[in-house]
Amino acid sequence: MAGSPPPPPGAVAAAHVSLDPYVERYAARTHGMRASEIRALFAVANRPEVVSLAGGMPFTAALPLDSVGVMVADLLRTAGASALQYTGGQGDPVLREQITQVMALEGITASPDDVVVTVGSQQALDLVSRVFLDPGDVVLAEAPSYVGALGTFSSAQAEVVHVAMDNDGLIPAALQEALDRLAARGRRAKLLYTVPNYHNPAGVSMSEPRRDEVLAIARSAGVLVLEDNPYGLLGFDEEPRRALRARTSDEVLYLGSFSKTISPGLRVGWVLAPHAVREKLVLASEAQVLCPPTFSGAIVSAYLRTQPWLEQVKVFRELYRERRDATLSALAQHFPAGATWTRPTGGFYVWVTLPEGLDSKAMLPRAVHARVAYVPGTGFYADGGGGRHLRLSYCFPEPDRIREGVRRLAAVLSEESELRSVFGPHATAPSGSKDRGRRAQTPAPDLA
Amino acid sequence: MAGSPPPPPGAVAAAHVSLDPYVERYAARTHGMRASEIRALFAVANRPEVVSLAGGMPFTAALPLDSVGVMVADLLRTAGASALQYTGGQGDPVLREQITQVMALEGITASPDDVVVTVGSQQALDLVSRVFLDPGDVVLAEAPSYVGALGTFSSAQAEVVHVAMDNDGLIPAALQEALDRLAARGRRAKLLYTVPNYHNPAGVSMSEPRRDEVLAIARSAGVLVLEDNPYGLLGFDEEPRRALRARTSDEVLYLGSFSKTISPGLRVGWVLAPHAVREKLVLASEAQVLCPPTFSGAIVSAYLRTQPWLEQVKVFRELYRERRDATLSALAQHFPAGATWTRPTGGFYVWVTLPEGLDSKAMLPRAVHARVAYVPGTGFYADGGGGRHLRLSYCFPEPDRIREGVRRLAAVLSEESELRSVFGPHATAPSGSKDRGRRAQTPAPDLA
Repeated sequence: MAGSPPPPPGAVAAAHVSLDPYVERYAARTHGMRASEIRALFAVANRPEVVSLAGGMPFTAALPLDSVGVMVADLLRTAGASALQYTGGQGDPVLREQITQVMALEGITASPDDVVVTVGSQQALDLVSRVFLDPGDVVLAEAPSYVGALGTFSSAQAEVVHVAMDNDGLIPAALQEALDRLAARGRRAKLLYTVPNYHNPAGVSMSEPRRDEVLAIARSAGVLVLEDNPYGLLGFDEEPRRALRARTSDEVLYLGSFSKTISPGLRVGWVLAPHAVREKLVLASEAQVLCPPTFSGAIVSAYLRTQPWLEQVKVFRELYRERRDATLSALAQHFPAGATWTRPTGGFYVWVTLPEGLDSKAMLPRAVHARVAYVPGTGFYADGGGGRHLRLSYCFPEPDRIREGVRRLAAVLSEESELRSVFGPHATAPSGSKDRGRRAQTPAPDLA
Repeated sequence: MAGSPPPPPGAVAAAHVSLDPYVERYAARTHGMRASEIRALFAVANRPEVVSLAGGMPFTAALPLDSVGVMVADLLRTAGASALQYTGGQGDPVLREQITQVMALEGITASPDDVVVTVGSQQALDLVSRVFLDPGDVVLAEAPSYVGALGTFSSAQAEVVHVAMDNDGLIPAALQEALDRLAARGRRAKLLYTVPNYHNPAGVSMSEPRRDEVLAIARSAGVLVLEDNPYGLLGFDEEPRRALRARTSDEVLYLGSFSKTISPGLRVGWVLAPHAVREKLVLASEAQVLCPPTFSGAIVSAYLRTQPWLEQVKVFRELYRERRDATLSALAQHFPAGATWTRPTGGFYVWVTLPEGLDSKAMLPRAVHARVAYVPGTGFYADGGGGRHLRLSYCFPEPDRIREGVRRLAAVLSEESELRSVFGPHATAPSGSKDRGRRAQTPAPDLA
């Protein structure tokens, strides 16, 4: 493109030497958009000989596929013409009514008219971002936070400010401090994004008293709470916890999903929002996808109506509990002193803190070489943090594979520590700082 | 919200008197977002006694629903666990390969690696907007243009500049003039959005020589062409026309869809883009929906592989041809002198120009009262034009219903003309000017 003006600085920084002839025509937001550096590695990690503890894929093979097949054939025979037609942008009213019944399990009272069906709850995240976030707006999010949400906020050119958490979830005092620091800079956060149950990636849940404290702090600061709850029904030894949205309706946007309780491949999620906001979300969704997938929605609706779906959730819970147990016992058996990890009581994830001096991202290529994969902690931070952490997902592999994977990973940790003790800290230091600082990276779907 | 700062001016203008307590927290783009005024009317128009010539809904009842049911049950039995799992953000590689074969019917040679599967082609429109459009950027679009695209461009805060068309589609000289006018203002268009085949809403197709002329003009102005082609295989008496993308690969982003050839409720569309752009589109899609609906994609893939899908497209073509014929003969029989209309050779739509002095939007309530519905032309213009036009969709109603609908509409036209001749132009003038000027309205899905 001889004679064309130079691309904006962001483009050069992102692409190093840009060979993209379209670069000067992209929108500003596009220049920060690039694939995570670890993606190529995961192409290798998906080989069968590698035990992947990376992806958060539900174990769909446990679904009653034969009876679902009969159900879907019946749906097509009796109502196929409408199940294959466009639907309203808000989603089918009967499905929305059923969704309110699902939310009632966590103490939520809501009208179907305030529910918007979305293409997975990822689209709900994006719609909320579209409706509320201008470039430069601040979103508060747990440290660490869900990589898909960070990608969406980044795509909205928002600034993510992390708030510390511990084994009881988001720390109210840290939230107040973050708000105070923002106020001191003359800034205000628009949203507080939180995953209160069986957190992705941290594997912890927000305690009962903290839920009310967090809501009170958010309310007094005028910050809307974005409650993302895909795992709420997947607690192993406890009743579903009472949602934030069950405590107040005006200040909370609640995101739900059937991806973990039924199937992610249907892409059916939802957002429950105050009425005025709901209207904007529907308009934004229509401009984005016209309407959610009618057929997927009809399948979910029929599944909830005709199949023993809560029994099936129990099947999933038992399966994931067994895998969680396999993970925790293998970690206790094999991992070195100095490593710590969370003990999830539900959901899919264990969050590991490595011994001082180890770097999870620098270590990943060696782990993949040793035939085990995980997601480095840096993916869950918008500010370059997380290098001493990694996420292990136990949802997909069989328990024996999990034990083998943890054993392999422990061996890698030992080698790393040894290298470090012989050659000093540089031997295990991060391979580069390119990925530090604020990024606009999006997750590969099977890693989210 | 006593004591809160006043909402921005846009919000006041849009909502007249705003009772929305969230208004001060919305993003700038949200303030222009509002439902079309005619939506409420269409809730009435959907009653069974009203003949709706409004919605562009494919006639899904003509699908072989029993054999699709058997096919889907088989898919679940044999590959259910993966068909219900997450997929890559770009969509399944086998489906993308099949999509290249579908595009080959219109002369396109492409690699599956340059195809991105989307949630209907509406999401493809949105992704292209996300990747290319900054607020204030210019998009050229035919006059009239697809309402869903206008909604998406508006949601991207882009400026749409219309380019005239005639019975041979977009007029190259008008395109050149529009570019010259922009250049004189120091502006440049980023995209030219066009529906070259069986245009929605105009019902015309771009002639063969104009295709090359339009591409040459766009190329020399450095404008990317966004070719939207949902109806290309639905020509009544002709082979599929050679796509713009078949003539050049670097300057065209091609949007395709299975909504009109298989089912809109599956929400499977795609975008074919130059490789560098394709990469950005995948990242944008992952931030938006994580991945397209796996199960829908698997159904389309199995349908293309196991069902006589081109025979079924022929069934649709015959069915729509019969309905087109019913529409045109009823218009010739009943419509008054001074009304003109296009004669589509494929697709779903006839575009009607009313006799001088009539206003399609002002007339709509009276038409609905007379039990017939259409979409007023103003919905297809970003600049308040189109008041003398309306769109008739013949895809969904049976031919007898179409004839009855056109007869009822002709009676309404007569009454309007009579009113006008007795009481003067004000009797049929637009009821208000609220909807004039640039808007951010999105279509209801069944009207798109």
